[in-house]
Amino acid sequence: MSPDDDIQFDHARADRIGLPEAVYAEGKSTDQLRSLVLGAAERATPLLITRLEATAHEALGPEVRVHLDFDPLSGTAFVNAPPPPGPERVAVVSAGTVDLRTAREATRTLAFHGVGSRLVADVGVAGIWRLLDRADEIARFPVVIAVAGMEGALFSVLAGLVPGVMIAVPTSHGYGVAEHGRLALHAALSSCAPGVVACNIDNGYGAACAALRALRLSN
Amino acid sequence: MSPDDDIQFDHARADRIGLPEAVYAEGKSTDQLRSLVLGAAERATPLLITRLEATAHEALGPEVRVHLDFDPLSGTAFVNAPPPPGPERVAVVSAGTVDLRTAREATRTLAFHGVGSRLVADVGVAGIWRLLDRADEIARFPVVIAVAGMEGALFSVLAGLVPGVMIAVPTSHGYGVAEHGRLALHAALSSCAPGVVACNIDNGYGAACAALRALRLSN
Amino acid sequence: MSPDDDIQFDHARADRIGLPEAVYAEGKSTDQLRSLVLGAAERATPLLITRLEATAHEALGPEVRVHLDFDPLSGTAFVNAPPPPGPERVAVVSAGTVDLRTAREATRTLAFHGVGSRLVADVGVAGIWRLLDRADEIARFPVVIAVAGMEGALFSVLAGLVPGVMIAVPTSHGYGVAEHGRLALHAALSSCAPGVVACNIDNGYGAACAALRALRLSN
Amino acid sequence: MSPDDDIQFDHARADRIGLPEAVYAEGKSTDQLRSLVLGAAERATPLLITRLEATAHEALGPEVRVHLDFDPLSGTAFVNAPPPPGPERVAVVSAGTVDLRTAREATRTLAFHGVGSRLVADVGVAGIWRLLDRADEIARFPVVIAVAGMEGALFSVLAGLVPGVMIAVPTSHGYGVAEHGRLALHAALSSCAPGVVACNIDNGYGAACAALRALRLSN
Amino acid sequence: MSPDDDIQFDHARADRIGLPEAVYAEGKSTDQLRSLVLGAAERATPLLITRLEATAHEALGPEVRVHLDFDPLSGTAFVNAPPPPGPERVAVVSAGTVDLRTAREATRTLAFHGVGSRLVADVGVAGIWRLLDRADEIARFPVVIAVAGMEGALFSVLAGLVPGVMIAVPTSHGYGVAEHGRLALHAALSSCAPGVVACNIDNGYGAACAALRALRLSN
Amino acid sequence: MSPDDDIQFDHARADRIGLPEAVYAEGKSTDQLRSLVLGAAERATPLLITRLEATAHEALGPEVRVHLDFDPLSGTAFVNAPPPPGPERVAVVSAGTVDLRTAREATRTLAFHGVGSRLVADVGVAGIWRLLDRADEIARFPVVIAVAGMEGALFSVLAGLVPGVMIAVPTSHGYGVAEHGRLALHAALSSCAPGVVACNIDNGYGAACAALRALRLSN
Amino acid sequence: MSPDDDIQFDHARADRIGLPEAVYAEGKSTDQLRSLVLGAAERATPLLITRLEATAHEALGPEVRVHLDFDPLSGTAFVNAPPPPGPERVAVVSAGTVDLRTAREATRTLAFHGVGSRLVADVGVAGIWRLLDRADEIARFPVVIAVAGMEGALFSVLAGLVPGVMIAVPTSHGYGVAEHGRLALHAALSSCAPGVVACNIDNGYGAACAALRALRLSN
Amino acid sequence: MSPDDDIQFDHARADRIGLPEAVYAEGKSTDQLRSLVLGAAERATPLLITRLEATAHEALGPEVRVHLDFDPLSGTAFVNAPPPPGPERVAVVSAGTVDLRTAREATRTLAFHGVGSRLVADVGVAGIWRLLDRADEIARFPVVIAVAGMEGALFSVLAGLVPGVMIAVPTSHGYGVAEHGRLALHAALSSCAPGVVACNIDNGYGAACAALRALRLSN
Repeated sequence: MSPDDDIQFDHARADRIGLPEAVYAEGKSTDQLRSLVLGAAERATPLLITRLEATAHEALGPEVRVHLDFDPLSGTAFVNAPPPPGPERVAVVSAGTVDLRTAREATRTLAFHGVGSRLVADVGVAGIWRLLDRADEIARFPVVIAVAGMEGALFSVLAGLVPGVMIAVPTSHGYGVAEHGRLALHAALSSCAPGVVACNIDNGYGAACAALRALRLSN
Repeated sequence: MSPDDDIQFDHARADRIGLPEAVYAEGKSTDQLRSLVLGAAERATPLLITRLEATAHEALGPEVRVHLDFDPLSGTAFVNAPPPPGPERVAVVSAGTVDLRTAREATRTLAFHGVGSRLVADVGVAGIWRLLDRADEIARFPVVIAVAGMEGALFSVLAGLVPGVMIAVPTSHGYGVAEHGRLALHAALSSCAPGVVACNIDNGYGAACAALRALRLSN
Repeated sequence: MSPDDDIQFDHARADRIGLPEAVYAEGKSTDQLRSLVLGAAERATPLLITRLEATAHEALGPEVRVHLDFDPLSGTAFVNAPPPPGPERVAVVSAGTVDLRTAREATRTLAFHGVGSRLVADVGVAGIWRLLDRADEIARFPVVIAVAGMEGALFSVLAGLVPGVMIAVPTSHGYGVAEHGRLALHAALSSCAPGVVACNIDNGYGAACAALRALRLSN
Repeated sequence: MSPDDDIQFDHARADRIGLPEAVYAEGKSTDQLRSLVLGAAERATPLLITRLEATAHEALGPEVRVHLDFDPLSGTAFVNAPPPPGPERVAVVSAGTVDLRTAREATRTLAFHGVGSRLVADVGVAGIWRLLDRADEIARFPVVIAVAGMEGALFSVLAGLVPGVMIAVPTSHGYGVAEHGRLALHAALSSCAPGVVACNIDNGYGAACAALRALRLSN
Repeated sequence: MSPDDDIQFDHARADRIGLPEAVYAEGKSTDQLRSLVLGAAERATPLLITRLEATAHEALGPEVRVHLDFDPLSGTAFVNAPPPPGPERVAVVSAGTVDLRTAREATRTLAFHGVGSRLVADVGVAGIWRLLDRADEIARFPVVIAVAGMEGALFSVLAGLVPGVMIAVPTSHGYGVAEHGRLALHAALSSCAPGVVACNIDNGYGAACAALRALRLSN
Repeated sequence: MSPDDDIQFDHARADRIGLPEAVYAEGKSTDQLRSLVLGAAERATPLLITRLEATAHEALGPEVRVHLDFDPLSGTAFVNAPPPPGPERVAVVSAGTVDLRTAREATRTLAFHGVGSRLVADVGVAGIWRLLDRADEIARFPVVIAVAGMEGALFSVLAGLVPGVMIAVPTSHGYGVAEHGRLALHAALSSCAPGVVACNIDNGYGAACAALRALRLSN
Repeated sequence: MSPDDDIQFDHARADRIGLPEAVYAEGKSTDQLRSLVLGAAERATPLLITRLEATAHEALGPEVRVHLDFDPLSGTAFVNAPPPPGPERVAVVSAGTVDLRTAREATRTLAFHGVGSRLVADVGVAGIWRLLDRADEIARFPVVIAVAGMEGALFSVLAGLVPGVMIAVPTSHGYGVAEHGRLALHAALSSCAPGVVACNIDNGYGAACAALRALRLSN
Repeated sequence: MSPDDDIQFDHARADRIGLPEAVYAEGKSTDQLRSLVLGAAERATPLLITRLEATAHEALGPEVRVHLDFDPLSGTAFVNAPPPPGPERVAVVSAGTVDLRTAREATRTLAFHGVGSRLVADVGVAGIWRLLDRADEIARFPVVIAVAGMEGALFSVLAGLVPGVMIAVPTSHGYGVAEHGRLALHAALSSCAPGVVACNIDNGYGAACAALRALRLSN
């Protein structure tokens, strides 16, 4: 296999479903990432990279990093960054500070595709008033992405308050029986509120893609 | 607690999110179900019942059954059945014969809320041509609900073919390592295609509610 | 071993910890149960029986049943029923209709030990207003037992609202990833609100015993 | 999100339930922790930090550490340390040397809230006499926190000896089938002695909060 | 395959290890069991049958049952019952009433091989004095089989009290997190007392075979 | 034990089944590996080493490495490398870039045994056309080894397209519910297409051995 | 959906891979099975049915059963039974009596496709001589299907003795930690002998299909 | 807690069961270990330390190491090493090279208690002849400790060949479905040969203690 195979995207699929493949950086070598970035830069194609650790970003060297709009909190990078997103159409609601990484992976993915979003952070249900104070604001969005770890109680409470699409992203935060996000995932899937759907653990990128699929209905 | 508590719905939530609570029949006594049905019939309120086994339906007696539009395959029943649904806006795609029960729980829930749907059955990926033959037809729907058990490979293949909202419903069919639907659920969540979202195992009702949330965007 | 061994209680422990052993009926034969009831009736000793199915109760025959104060919903029975309990000192809060069996096992165990309780039923968090409407009432109790299945989001919300002892009883209701109560149990243990403690799945009896231990502090 | 969000506590909840939110240090950056400590120091507000590794403590630098009363064994730190606690009202009983970290997280949390406690260490049940020798001493406390890993047999034996509130904290110590504390947790939940309640694995902080909830009954 | 294959024992192995294969009745048809019993009766060979439910025993018919020494509690049956066993060389200690079935499977297997045993029942650790009262008596036996379900705390306490071979048999009794005996099994394997060995869940027969292997050392 | 035991192969087995034991490098010390390589070099025996990390290879030193034909991607090394393999008789099909390590472990093992193979890389099913474009090419091979992680949908689609031996090798790539390859393994085992067989996770070596067993039929 | 959909086979796939879809009877209604059998009988098409319980077979009625060649042990039935199979090309080796159902599902599936097989039953490894006595006989077959439950030790021993294709079929027999076949499955996958491949638990049909795929190499 | 608590052994238990507590080094600080060793050296008491990594041993410094008889392979150390053991009374049989660490932990523990043992290494069942060649030699020992990882097939084969006490020690070696020793553990517990008993994963120390308990019968 030539290394070129590695940067060959599935353009047929992108045409079909309108979501270009992103590059998942974890597990890729510095050489592979470098070649992907430089290739996209040369072709002037927008490219989204996810799960790019700060150290991996650093290792790319200045001549590659110059092409990147890198966000260390979410570990995302844009090549040929798109113009600033339009009006806010998705609310991204997160429970705790540690959930921000995943929440921001979602907002950055949306921005990359030209969709604005509003981040409503730190509204875990143990202090229910924080969430209730902002319930009407959140309920106005047609699509809500909720991000929570531990027991994921946010998903059920929120789904009872908002009428729109309700996408739950469990995060791997917590310890002991939280089982690296399994608990929050199952909480989303077993929610007593109807119509909650879930993505894989820590998958803020996937949640944003699902939101993009839904937003097509309003176009 | 008086038995009346049992039939008291959460009208505040229905107003907020537009999805009236349905009655999950499993685990409820014949007396409880009878009182729920007769109460709804008297008030002329539409009521959706899910997971109503044929024997439980039979046990309700003729004076209760007369109020029910019962579908034995899906185990759903309507009280004060709504008018026939409008045009088809959701495709419900199922992999095997045994997945039909859940697929039909979804189509019936949609119908109860006035939304038409098209069932595309028996298009498991082991014979990929069956699915490909209908790919264009399915891709035209803004919302697709995919229903599959066993290894759930349908979810990934389908998500690469359709641009709309892609809701996966894993079913509990299969044996051994299929683990009563856990395998298909995880396949949906780990799909290599972007933007697949999942519901709990066998939860056709939940998938339909998620579809209803999404369809609001096009209103 | 003579069958008498079977009805020999650990009186030393009862003296030490003040909680007489109860009879867990599940798995005991009709003969064993009969001999336990008649023995207690003869000795005029109060006896609490838990997990006594209606059919097992029926099978005991009229000459045994006459000694029993039986509650079919909770599957509990008293021999030599104690006087009516005193003022309400424990709130038992339950999420769904199916959780009532366990909630009532708790209230009956409390009543057997002379402690009154108030049942606040059907306040699941998907319709958060139902719970908030009663939050002040619940918060006045020094001990709260919360009973919930599925994703157990009730535990976290409630623990953020009440200052007293907060005992969570997960129930085995739910399907798929709810894993027969494992999900609700883990939600209680991983609660983002501080100081929630948990009992085994469906263990209303154990929760009541824990409440009795706590109430000693106020004597 | 501004870093300020991070140090915004849920004062409404603290007012309601009387337990101010603590800072869980694990996963927080040095900058976030620094800002939390200095903020509390400036406002002269008492602050409890848990799961603060020695290296994380070191990294804070001398100008921050000067505000901290740090205990390396338990990984807890106080800002604006409260006055010495009052008389001993809680017994904290631990099975093995490795359980001391968690036991001390409990005693430190109690001390932070002004409650004295007695540590009874190294009384695992494999040498039952060690525990029996101190049973009467332990049984005099209204609240007992038991800390054990491996097979957690301590919980059942102790619960049969003491009449007060019995809070089990499983620890993650052990190997093979001990499953990082899952075994000890399940032992607590399945205890053959009535009224044992459990916290999450290694959660000494949560056990202390539960004890504080119980101690309100005696005020 | 002829049905004869079914009753062909592995005589070579019996010669090697001195433990003739027993018949595990569960899953065998009435015809298969009948032919096994009648064959053994005809050849005047002693035969041990385990896991023979009362209904399966009944179904064999009087002409087969006449050859059986059947014990309904343990579900064991002897064909050509051996002479009464010799002096007691094994103590079988059980925690709860429900553990008796398995304890008795062990004592019956020992008896079939000519070894006497003493059953010490109902000495669960929640009332530790019951066990301590009999500790010296138990400690005199060279081999101890301990039988317990739920949290299996008996294994650790007992192993700290007796010097001989200590075989733990976890039982499937308990509910919720007891996981059908998995909890008790892991408790035995993770015991804080040295030298405990374990058999499979409910495997009283296996424990007796292990005891027979050990008793050879004293011959 | 002398270190020589370590390099003593089971020649009897090799004679019987025709597959010489390979050296699994993981967990072996540098000294052990050195002695194995030098021994084989001296005896002029071909030797296959698997799971040899680049750092472990480096640590062997130049005087050992000179005897090795090392492939860093697959972590395999040959001593006394065999002549180039014959015509291609096995297709090795992989889903994603990260699966190449395992795919190459298979092709290298085949080459070591003189069997040529064709690698068809990067044909995951989310873009089904990539796979379909090469389906006829793949179907011509009598043995196909499919390598995939995540949800392993490739196995089912491919098995419906090719008539030959179909060996699935799940890989440990993926996150969250992918469970380090368990998901892909179960997908292979539960495939809706008949006659798929599976190897352990990441076991490219084992898949090649299975292929070698099958290829004997055509000799 | 019309019931006809149910009997529509995937003829394209059959053409491609040469293995016609079989009917998995479990979960199908009597009406569905009846229509499948009568349809095949009318069209004079050979049809294989698996997992057909004796009671389900009985329920079909005499007018349907007349078309079936039914084998109660394996739960398989043929419509338009093929001519007797040719010479024996596969050895099916089983460990215990309870494994015969699955072993026979394999031999019947082979027979349906015209392939003869030899059943070597009751050669579990606890009495290793039984297996060794027949090792040479088994080793002569180009394909071996091994069927075992419990700890599945047969797979490793056998794979070290035979050079051909080695397909392991774990069965769900055993109790406690055998986990309904999971143990035997994992034993096959982790075998210390190279080149063992595995099918799903109890999947004798799948093992036969894999054998058929392999036998094509010798045609 | 003073550090002295840490080195206070349970002498009452040692008197009762004749097995002095050993020091499990993992998780203990260098200071704690130092104080334990020097204390034992001063009191001239024999002391056994297990799970002492080479780096932890190194860290103790020369003035402590001088008191230790350290074995790096098994990670065991003796203080006041006992006289050489007597005649060989236990066979320790291991399957693979990686199992030697655990096997040697067993032989060292036996030696510490004055019992000689014979190590029979590298007799995994994939090459059954290696084991059979030594079967008679092994069968002569009254106690056999078998050490194996992966699928643990050794336990069943060996238990069918030897009449004495048969103690299985599963090891954590293997990958994928081997689940860090869970597979080998379950294989031991589900063995088709009667009377196998098991210790926790990697617990060579525990197996030796169990052997010591058994050897008392022959004194």
